[in-house]
Amino acid sequence: MKKLNIPQTHNSLTKFRVRYVETDAMGIVHHSAYLAWFEMGRADLGRKIGFPYSDIEKHGFYYPVTEVFCSYKNSACYDDEVIVKTWIHTVRSRSFIFGYEIYNLERLLVTGYTKHIVINRNGKVTRLPENLFLAYKNFDTDLLG
Amino acid sequence: MKKLNIPQTHNSLTKFRVRYVETDAMGIVHHSAYLAWFEMGRADLGRKIGFPYSDIEKHGFYYPVTEVFCSYKNSACYDDEVIVKTWIHTVRSRSFIFGYEIYNLERLLVTGYTKHIVINRNGKVTRLPENLFLAYKNFDTDLLG
Amino acid sequence: MKKLNIPQTHNSLTKFRVRYVETDAMGIVHHSAYLAWFEMGRADLGRKIGFPYSDIEKHGFYYPVTEVFCSYKNSACYDDEVIVKTWIHTVRSRSFIFGYEIYNLERLLVTGYTKHIVINRNGKVTRLPENLFLAYKNFDTDLLG
Amino acid sequence: MKKLNIPQTHNSLTKFRVRYVETDAMGIVHHSAYLAWFEMGRADLGRKIGFPYSDIEKHGFYYPVTEVFCSYKNSACYDDEVIVKTWIHTVRSRSFIFGYEIYNLERLLVTGYTKHIVINRNGKVTRLPENLFLAYKNFDTDLLG
Repeated sequence: MKKLNIPQTHNSLTKFRVRYVETDAMGIVHHSAYLAWFEMGRADLGRKIGFPYSDIEKHGFYYPVTEVFCSYKNSACYDDEVIVKTWIHTVRSRSFIFGYEIYNLERLLVTGYTKHIVINRNGKVTRLPENLFLAYKNFDTDLLG
Repeated sequence: MKKLNIPQTHNSLTKFRVRYVETDAMGIVHHSAYLAWFEMGRADLGRKIGFPYSDIEKHGFYYPVTEVFCSYKNSACYDDEVIVKTWIHTVRSRSFIFGYEIYNLERLLVTGYTKHIVINRNGKVTRLPENLFLAYKNFDTDLLG
Repeated sequence: MKKLNIPQTHNSLTKFRVRYVETDAMGIVHHSAYLAWFEMGRADLGRKIGFPYSDIEKHGFYYPVTEVFCSYKNSACYDDEVIVKTWIHTVRSRSFIFGYEIYNLERLLVTGYTKHIVINRNGKVTRLPENLFLAYKNFDTDLLG
Repeated sequence: MKKLNIPQTHNSLTKFRVRYVETDAMGIVHHSAYLAWFEMGRADLGRKIGFPYSDIEKHGFYYPVTEVFCSYKNSACYDDEVIVKTWIHTVRSRSFIFGYEIYNLERLLVTGYTKHIVINRNGKVTRLPENLFLAYKNFDTDLLG
């Protein structure tokens, strides 16, 4: 699982600058900030394929994170322009996995994934609605290709 | 308002250590961390007088912050032992003000206040329940004296 | 001081979306997140006038925050598009004040200011270099007008 | 690696309460907060065996995180009392792994690990000083047993 197959073409790119609050006393970005950046990456991907997560919650579905893996190769610094490359790695009926690579303008910083389950308003694990399931399933071939 | 009268005896003390994630690239604690520390101070005060904020929310009351002021005099660093001194500065029927001083073992770091209103589950401004109003009103004379 | 004169034309606009990590259990953005957004606002302003803060630090000057004021009028929610309007309110030889207004697409959310001093690598209060002083001084008439 | 051997007796316990700022709009603790809690856990462990991380940095050694894994089983909520169980899982000459379990008073919330390398002031990977290497190596048998 940790060796992710990274799609070269079908992925969503999110770009922003490092905030000062995200740095720490080592002078680099704190390792926990990358989890928020993963989140920005998958938010953007969802919006691009027509299913913003804010809408999904309004329809009573939630995607809590059940697993995170993050491998840190290089450090980002304050004000760096950062690019998050996000893709959908696996989709099952009740869970799915996003893959990520994070870069600054010079090099690869971080690779990782987040695993999510689908729950309803009562916190019960539930199936992805069919249209979402298909949108995720066809993500790399259809919508961002 | 900014010149707070600081009660010498009737206040609540909260002690903890600075986390690495709270520091920034200047090598000191980021100025936004103190707002979370104010929050810990008033949480502790509420618990001590028998009204933990988690219970207040369960009863359908919420205390959103409507104003923050923070004056930074000295910097905290990673692993410093920090003490938040919290008191109730003003209580009205629908709003109240907490005052704070934050110290490390050597000096005063920050003074400030937060102003809160009381809202209900529908987000409407509402009166503090009588028992809470009295507990806050009598805070300095009765409960922590 | 709290009644800021808000320049109608000479200010810098910064736009982004609310991150999930910035929300709290009230379902809205946590009040401490706005301080990070102020920071993004002044970072953007500095870059626009040719003095990115990352460069300023490389030259041995730092702008620690000595005072924050924030008045919360309305709440932002997850995924809201947020706009930070930033301007330079006062410039002195060793300190300056940024003013801010934060909006989502519907309304004004927050007004506030941050006060900063200028220090050098040894933490000693120092004068703004002349070119920076002038750039800040002429901010509203020259560069973003 | 993901199946950690959890030492039943030789570990360090760290206890604190969930802050409001750590919650998100799902009403639970945001998944990134657990990384800060891991950090608190290993800070505490280091202090207990006589090598606080703040001292280690003063001697010119830094422990950046090179890998994080986190498996989320249950959610913590605001004001929960949380316990982080931390242990040293592996020690090599230039890197080591901490293991973690996080509980509230009712159940296991999260298991995970962080992998660290040792670098010096110039950012170069370096060997753990002998006394630190031994302290980590003997952690479970000697110092907290």
